[in-house]
Amino acid sequence: MLYFIGLGLGDAKDITVKGLEVIKGCSRVYLEAYTSILTVGKEALEEYYGRELLLADRDMVEQEADEILKGADVSDVAFLVVGDPFGATTHSDLVLRAVNAGIQYRVIHNASILNAVGCCGLQLYSFGETVSIVFWTDNWKPESFYDKIKGNRDMGMHTLCLLDIKVKEQSMENLMRGRKIYEPPRFMTVAQAAEQLLEIVQNRREQGEELAITEETVCVGLARVGADDQAIQAGSLREMASCDLGGPLHSMIITGHLHPLEVDMLRLFSGPESLKGLKMTGSSTYIS
Amino acid sequence: MLYFIGLGLGDAKDITVKGLEVIKGCSRVYLEAYTSILTVGKEALEEYYGRELLLADRDMVEQEADEILKGADVSDVAFLVVGDPFGATTHSDLVLRAVNAGIQYRVIHNASILNAVGCCGLQLYSFGETVSIVFWTDNWKPESFYDKIKGNRDMGMHTLCLLDIKVKEQSMENLMRGRKIYEPPRFMTVAQAAEQLLEIVQNRREQGEELAITEETVCVGLARVGADDQAIQAGSLREMASCDLGGPLHSMIITGHLHPLEVDMLRLFSGPESLKGLKMTGSSTYIS
Repeated sequence: MLYFIGLGLGDAKDITVKGLEVIKGCSRVYLEAYTSILTVGKEALEEYYGRELLLADRDMVEQEADEILKGADVSDVAFLVVGDPFGATTHSDLVLRAVNAGIQYRVIHNASILNAVGCCGLQLYSFGETVSIVFWTDNWKPESFYDKIKGNRDMGMHTLCLLDIKVKEQSMENLMRGRKIYEPPRFMTVAQAAEQLLEIVQNRREQGEELAITEETVCVGLARVGADDQAIQAGSLREMASCDLGGPLHSMIITGHLHPLEVDMLRLFSGPESLKGLKMTGSSTYIS
Repeated sequence: MLYFIGLGLGDAKDITVKGLEVIKGCSRVYLEAYTSILTVGKEALEEYYGRELLLADRDMVEQEADEILKGADVSDVAFLVVGDPFGATTHSDLVLRAVNAGIQYRVIHNASILNAVGCCGLQLYSFGETVSIVFWTDNWKPESFYDKIKGNRDMGMHTLCLLDIKVKEQSMENLMRGRKIYEPPRFMTVAQAAEQLLEIVQNRREQGEELAITEETVCVGLARVGADDQAIQAGSLREMASCDLGGPLHSMIITGHLHPLEVDMLRLFSGPESLKGLKMTGSSTYIS
């Protein structure tokens, strides 16, 4: 049996009791190591689980999947994923390979950022499409996520923005020379995401476009959701650009139509001046 | 401290290790009992946790919240929620009452249907707004969820439909006579939801409206997601209307634009005839 086990979002103890029991009985345990991170490292997990973990980076999962599946028809193998196994990244490819090889699989779910963001008080019901914001380079500044946020806001929906993670990245020089030397991991902060978004807003303004969001649009920055030191800050997009929420991982929400109860919750996470721009209109609220 | 603890979706062992540790140290433990259910009952949870659970129904949470909060400033109280505490229903009201009473709170997340549906192979990224489908009565047949599904499909998005749960429901007669006699719990099945949706499709067709979905639209029925006996079936909306996925809880997905990898995953959950209507168009697929 191949077990896909979600680890949740915080530390070693965020695994489920069921997941932990399965890990202890598996012949091999892989840790998927490229789509997310916990606040604790591989060693802390190994100590808590009492098992050696084999790191599975993207290359391994995509090119050496047979290695992961080896023997899973006669013994149990676990594939651990931060968050939920089918959260931000689906592992459909590995599922399909297992099924094609006649190997049974099972999923042990856990929280992922896609549902845990509800802790800021915005209703999960009211989220539209999730978007990803990637690191811009000098030559590559995609704006497509702005249009998705616009689409969501046109329907009154909130947008969860997942922020870029660069793990095992090669410099252009090392890539061209075929040297497997990797840059230090990089994790986009809420401030960086907000800055890129502000630049798009300015571009669109200069093009005379009707703006879906402005510098005053209410956003929520979240860091290390589910961990002991999680940080949540609500405020304008402009404020997000200068906020410091500490270490990774960060996410950002661009709000849509706000229910009064959502506003009350957001006030728990903002300074007294931050949300003064909220315009209450009867039983519902729009934020410019 | 008031702890909001998610129980996940399956049985007693789907709680996180952290959540279980907290429960064992709390002075009182409430079980929220009106928005969802596990495949096991209160007694099984009590036995596994080694703690008495106080059932908190909707009336209690809304009208006797002070009872729940009592003493939480000096000792620990746990409020258990099936799925994630901020999943389908937010407990913002209880959070705000706690904060106003000077009581600290903490959330221990878990899987909820909103992220666990990823197990069917559809990308969570590609879901639009979540909708609820309520039981129709002879006199009340709301169609608003159809229009939300249409909005999602217009943007190529999938729609997760949460199906109605009726717990502690009073008959009209008992309600009018003020008798606190409750009907047996009812849980909408995928077949019932599909039938209601088919009726709307037929209504809209008769009104000459351009249809967002038809009898042939590919849907996914899910039952008891995360439990040992979970069931997933992919097929046309027409097929959903006659499928039997067993006991509660059920959910249904109306697909939007499908990626080839999503189609491959859905084939794992369908009969050979079911998805033959899929029209592959290059690297992407639309389903009529």
